[in-house]
Amino acid sequence: MSDLDQQKPAEQRPADSPLVDTNGHPISSEKNPSETYDGLHEDAVDSILEALESQDVQALREHVAHLHFADAADLIERLSADQRRVLLDATKDILDPDVFTELDETVRDEVVDIVGLDAMAEVVSELDTDDAVEIIDELEKHEQEHVLDAISPADRTLIKEGLAYEEDTAGRLMQREVMTVPQFWSIGETIDFLRDIAEQEEWETPNVFYDIVVVDPRHKPVGTIPLSLLLQSKRPVNVTDIMHERMKLIPVDMDQEEVAFLFRQRDLVSAPVVGEEGRLVGVITIDDVVDIIDEEAEEDILALGGVREDDLYSATLDTTKQRFSWLFVNLLTAIMASVVIGFFQGTIEQVVALAVLMPIVASMGGNAGTQTLTVAVRALATKELTSTNAMRQIGKELLVGVINGFVFAILIGGVAWVWFSSLDIGIVIALAMIVNMVVAGLFGAIIPIALDRHGVDPAVASSVFLTTVTDVVGFMVFLSLGALLLL
Amino acid sequence: MSDLDQQKPAEQRPADSPLVDTNGHPISSEKNPSETYDGLHEDAVDSILEALESQDVQALREHVAHLHFADAADLIERLSADQRRVLLDATKDILDPDVFTELDETVRDEVVDIVGLDAMAEVVSELDTDDAVEIIDELEKHEQEHVLDAISPADRTLIKEGLAYEEDTAGRLMQREVMTVPQFWSIGETIDFLRDIAEQEEWETPNVFYDIVVVDPRHKPVGTIPLSLLLQSKRPVNVTDIMHERMKLIPVDMDQEEVAFLFRQRDLVSAPVVGEEGRLVGVITIDDVVDIIDEEAEEDILALGGVREDDLYSATLDTTKQRFSWLFVNLLTAIMASVVIGFFQGTIEQVVALAVLMPIVASMGGNAGTQTLTVAVRALATKELTSTNAMRQIGKELLVGVINGFVFAILIGGVAWVWFSSLDIGIVIALAMIVNMVVAGLFGAIIPIALDRHGVDPAVASSVFLTTVTDVVGFMVFLSLGALLLL
Repeated sequence: MSDLDQQKPAEQRPADSPLVDTNGHPISSEKNPSETYDGLHEDAVDSILEALESQDVQALREHVAHLHFADAADLIERLSADQRRVLLDATKDILDPDVFTELDETVRDEVVDIVGLDAMAEVVSELDTDDAVEIIDELEKHEQEHVLDAISPADRTLIKEGLAYEEDTAGRLMQREVMTVPQFWSIGETIDFLRDIAEQEEWETPNVFYDIVVVDPRHKPVGTIPLSLLLQSKRPVNVTDIMHERMKLIPVDMDQEEVAFLFRQRDLVSAPVVGEEGRLVGVITIDDVVDIIDEEAEEDILALGGVREDDLYSATLDTTKQRFSWLFVNLLTAIMASVVIGFFQGTIEQVVALAVLMPIVASMGGNAGTQTLTVAVRALATKELTSTNAMRQIGKELLVGVINGFVFAILIGGVAWVWFSSLDIGIVIALAMIVNMVVAGLFGAIIPIALDRHGVDPAVASSVFLTTVTDVVGFMVFLSLGALLLL
Repeated sequence: MSDLDQQKPAEQRPADSPLVDTNGHPISSEKNPSETYDGLHEDAVDSILEALESQDVQALREHVAHLHFADAADLIERLSADQRRVLLDATKDILDPDVFTELDETVRDEVVDIVGLDAMAEVVSELDTDDAVEIIDELEKHEQEHVLDAISPADRTLIKEGLAYEEDTAGRLMQREVMTVPQFWSIGETIDFLRDIAEQEEWETPNVFYDIVVVDPRHKPVGTIPLSLLLQSKRPVNVTDIMHERMKLIPVDMDQEEVAFLFRQRDLVSAPVVGEEGRLVGVITIDDVVDIIDEEAEEDILALGGVREDDLYSATLDTTKQRFSWLFVNLLTAIMASVVIGFFQGTIEQVVALAVLMPIVASMGGNAGTQTLTVAVRALATKELTSTNAMRQIGKELLVGVINGFVFAILIGGVAWVWFSSLDIGIVIALAMIVNMVVAGLFGAIIPIALDRHGVDPAVASSVFLTTVTDVVGFMVFLSLGALLLL
């Protein structure tokens, strides 16, 4: 992410020349007046809400000028649609371009409509390519064309190239601006070069960088030099003498989840991206990867809860539609469970206690299975559960199911015995509990592993299979044992 | 995380002098022979498993010497206890110290028992303070003393200071080694200093760093200089002219979750940590924060699935015990639901179709509520759901519940009508469905928000409250409507 303001040396913005916005109103240059961080202050939010209420444009501009771009994005997200419009109309000319990269997609859609496409073209011009590509990708076709037409040909080419890479790949994450030096340079030449280009505005350089990439004449990376190493080396030393030759090169079509795994595993801060024939095409930095790590974890959390994507900011009707499909699948499995119960109507009529107790067996199975499934889904995501230890894990979960099955069989068997004054009912529910807990442990482990092997995301599909199994087995075993032992 | 090997310039390990381990066996110096990353290769694992099977010490040593420390840690985690012992006995003298920082806690416990405390003392001496503190913290009291006695007094002091900070705070995450310069220095002096200390072994410097911290005479940070900015500045310029004065300072007692939020929000790569009177005490780098982001997301995923902590590597009996408490709470709520059904035994005896259909209403309520709850828990964790928009979100979820409630009421009402040839039964289940879906949406949003307000982790406790509500309301409404309309 670019941070142009921070990049600007302090000497360029003397404290005694107050910034003035396009309307001539003075803006404080202090973006973050507090020394320690505490997020978006509740009182700051309250004052802004008040200013919105009273449509006090001047107050709004001052408040927003004080916010860090990430906090400004959070603020915009939290507002209602009407409040958003008022705020943006008052402040769109002073918003940091990075505010747009931090916005949730749904909210950004709305914001684009408010600020207009010409403003978006300006925003896009100021951002690093990775961020610009992400924003443009989410626009409608005709909006994309409008924005691309309005920016410089150089930016347009870079962004169009970025858009050509598959979504969710390294090509989309990378920024195109890379700091490279040829193999034959010395440390001294490298440092002089860095000082020179800092003075040339037109040179396309990354805003912040952590490594220098050493390239051969065909622009293939041959090594990387972390800046801390560069700084600790003498001027006459050649770059090839200190560079890390065993750097990780990321193929441009690598899946972003793999990229995130690699960064985490290797504690990387940046890594060169290579295209055809191993030529350097860009660099991925840790800040973009942190967002991916976050996203992937979020996807798993939401998928396990039966939600396809974060719909906090979606319109009610969109949310309703999105949630519908998962609920519909669950309706079918619930009906299936009811069909199983239907087979035993006669039994239930004679021993109505069975109807009273039957949800317990199914529910306990569902909960025990969900525990196993959650651990398995997470371990698959972090590559901790592999073919090497899969059988051992399944065996362990089976055993956990057996032990907890017996414990809960005794507990619920005793309760049922006392409640209905019938030892037989106690025995029926105890036996059913053991069977269902064992089945839950077994399938809780097997289902995600099997889905993963077949290339299906286990976080999305596991739980519907699991509850079908634990419901059907739970009702079936309990009621058939009831029919067998009680009639 | 230290990466001593990578930090060593290439010139210090010429390719034609093969490394030799303590037993005189040659070890390849190629840690990562493949240019692009694909994790721990399945065939590498297979060859190692074979070598373990045949107890081929030489082959094991060669294989492990080829692994990156993170992959070696993954390998050790995946093995069974017996395999682990064989592998470690064969390779403990050539393991990278960082392998230990990457290991899961439960596994590390076992590994410490195998390699012994003297080996651990050596490992701890070579790590950065933050990693060393983490490892020592998890040892038993007497083990801690043994290890601390065996290391150098300087390391011991740093580690003891680290241990004095509260768990899960910035103090534990930070490394003590910070690159600082006084205010009156120029860029040239700074670079010369960095070059000088690189040659002095005894100087305590961080292995890799991203920012220089400028400090005043009382060691208070007055600014930070990203290395890329330092490199782009001229030698005569003073450090105070280019430093970022508005850097984020992290109080040493800040919760690690807040630290992670701050790094993500501000796209930080490193940040100075300050103690009493604002004095610099250490620095936190992004690699440690990535681990925290990961951990926090993992905690939420597991908690929502009813698992207290990642128990993949725990012994079966420990896992069984850990899972028990959650299942026990669920048993109580399941019994509560059964008690509700118990009130309607007479009704069920007369209309057994009610017993057949009743799980559908409860199950659909549970699923719809879980969707809402998942979105809310996640939004609370990412600070997207706050008092500013809480009421609007609750209102939205209520509306989603109403709409989906009506849709599913029509669906299941139709099914029940046809199935039992009774329009009345269809009407009963349709009405119950509407009520329970609305209740599910409402409580799915209110429960996590309320728990969060009262300082209870919503990920842990929400779902048990929710299923109690959706079960009790589901059975109660359906069966009482049945009693009212069908008898």
